Amino acid sequence: MKHAVTLADVREAELRIRRIVHRTPTLTCETIDRLAGRRVYFKCENLQKTGSFKYRGATNAVQALADDVAARGVVTHSSGNHAQALALAAKFRNIPAYVVMPHTATTVKKQAVLGYGGQVIECAPTLADRERTAAEWVAKTGGTLIPPFDHVHVIAGQGTAALELLEDVPELDAVVVPVGGGGLLSGFCIASRGVKPTIRVFGAEPLGADDAARSKAAGVWQPQTAPNSIADGLLTSLGQLTWPIVRDEVEAIFTVTEDDIRAKMRLIWERMKLIIEPSAAVGVCVVLSEAFRELPNIRTVGVVLCGGNVNLDTLYW
Amino acid sequence: MKHAVTLADVREAELRIRRIVHRTPTLTCETIDRLAGRRVYFKCENLQKTGSFKYRGATNAVQALADDVAARGVVTHSSGNHAQALALAAKFRNIPAYVVMPHTATTVKKQAVLGYGGQVIECAPTLADRERTAAEWVAKTGGTLIPPFDHVHVIAGQGTAALELLEDVPELDAVVVPVGGGGLLSGFCIASRGVKPTIRVFGAEPLGADDAARSKAAGVWQPQTAPNSIADGLLTSLGQLTWPIVRDEVEAIFTVTEDDIRAKMRLIWERMKLIIEPSAAVGVCVVLSEAFRELPNIRTVGVVLCGGNVNLDTLYW
Repeated sequence: MKHAVTLADVREAELRIRRIVHRTPTLTCETIDRLAGRRVYFKCENLQKTGSFKYRGATNAVQALADDVAARGVVTHSSGNHAQALALAAKFRNIPAYVVMPHTATTVKKQAVLGYGGQVIECAPTLADRERTAAEWVAKTGGTLIPPFDHVHVIAGQGTAALELLEDVPELDAVVVPVGGGGLLSGFCIASRGVKPTIRVFGAEPLGADDAARSKAAGVWQPQTAPNSIADGLLTSLGQLTWPIVRDEVEAIFTVTEDDIRAKMRLIWERMKLIIEPSAAVGVCVVLSEAFRELPNIRTVGVVLCGGNVNLDTLYW
Repeated sequence: MKHAVTLADVREAELRIRRIVHRTPTLTCETIDRLAGRRVYFKCENLQKTGSFKYRGATNAVQALADDVAARGVVTHSSGNHAQALALAAKFRNIPAYVVMPHTATTVKKQAVLGYGGQVIECAPTLADRERTAAEWVAKTGGTLIPPFDHVHVIAGQGTAALELLEDVPELDAVVVPVGGGGLLSGFCIASRGVKPTIRVFGAEPLGADDAARSKAAGVWQPQTAPNSIADGLLTSLGQLTWPIVRDEVEAIFTVTEDDIRAKMRLIWERMKLIIEPSAAVGVCVVLSEAFRELPNIRTVGVVLCGGNVNLDTLYW
């Protein structure tokens, strides 16, 4: 076995979660095709339950637990989409979810987790205190820690989106996937290249959080320090499980600017009537970039619109 | 033949337009199901080309023209979704579209038509001058007038959305359809009741433009004078072809308030990550209303999200 996650894990995940998660639609837009110079298929994970692909991995991880283990609940530290996803995945299994969040997290984020039935546990706004508090709750409850990306079942769950996309569009030549911790990207590598070894997988990353691009360039894992991007789902470093997959299976990582992210986010809202979050716009930026347009032998490309969780009280442009 | 449009017309329309229009997805949302007290299926015509169902009817009308007639182009007076739809439908057939608009129409609306390859002809902002100018352009070009709703091919085209919805959800007990001129609503009546005679069809209308509700109550066509609603796609009176169908085939028309329209529009943006325009929110208001919730024997209901054309530079709440 070359990597921590295999196609068999993804297929198992698919069976486990198919009646729980949405089978999201694959949509197209002629305006985008024209701008991209090729046919673009959008896998709409912004339409997934809880508003992001994270619900796949969280559901797979929660459903994979043995009954007695599951009964003690699940724990994570996250203030983003994984937190909401885990809360709902736990609710579906009727078990508690303990979500550790910095006390500085916005009320909107806390309420999202509460709304899905999760329990919010506040901590100091440092990674050390988040980890310490999560460990404390694991010890206290006997619950299982479900990290946001560096976990076999989580990666395998995210990979199910790739199986669906290739079912819809078997002729796909390439996919472009946003990369933060790499759970979605590595899941896509394992699933899509497992099913179709010739498919080319590309990562999409903000210039202000370009650890994956730097790691690929160096051939050695590089941490993300002081990330700075509106794409708040893509700020973390790659993980121990995700990095080897990204290193071996991804052809290239493209980076994009903040202005471009805002512009392409608006383009998708306007032309496709889909609400996507900044992180999802990053993949759109890549397929419409000069550099990507010039790649030969790609007639059809898939792009993952990874999430749609935004604050509707502010305009992003 | 009971009415001007038949199921055969809709089936013919489906064959004519199926390779041109999007087969839009049918989506669900558990939060909405819970609020509605039953299973709700959303037919996402906001994801249709040009951002509304209008592209179905316009395409059907344009494609039905004989070659020599089509070559002279099509004419309409509209500043809304029908204008954009007709422009793109004409572009697809490579014929000119002459769109008469009041000179007071916003730049955004003019540019939308221009963007789809239509020609904008300005007139004075009165119905009389719009009709006069359109007639003048018909005379001048020999083009065909394609009205926004009161036209057999337009109504039949809109009905194709109902065929798709019933293909996706054959067990549907009822549908809720926004009503302005009644093209979509009457198309839904003919198509859905043609395919499944037991299905119940309801109209959804803003209180500030309640001519359909008043007409149904009186049993006689009532005009819409001085409409006042944010749902700018639903301001017109029913037509000569649409009214008899609405009178005979619609079970009831429900009216909703402006505050409710804004609130439900936001609910769909927030929970379903779909951009819908105010007119599309009107159907959502109805399925979530006390009055509709109390209707017995409806386990599953379809709601048409008729369009998603909004100005993204303003917040609606």
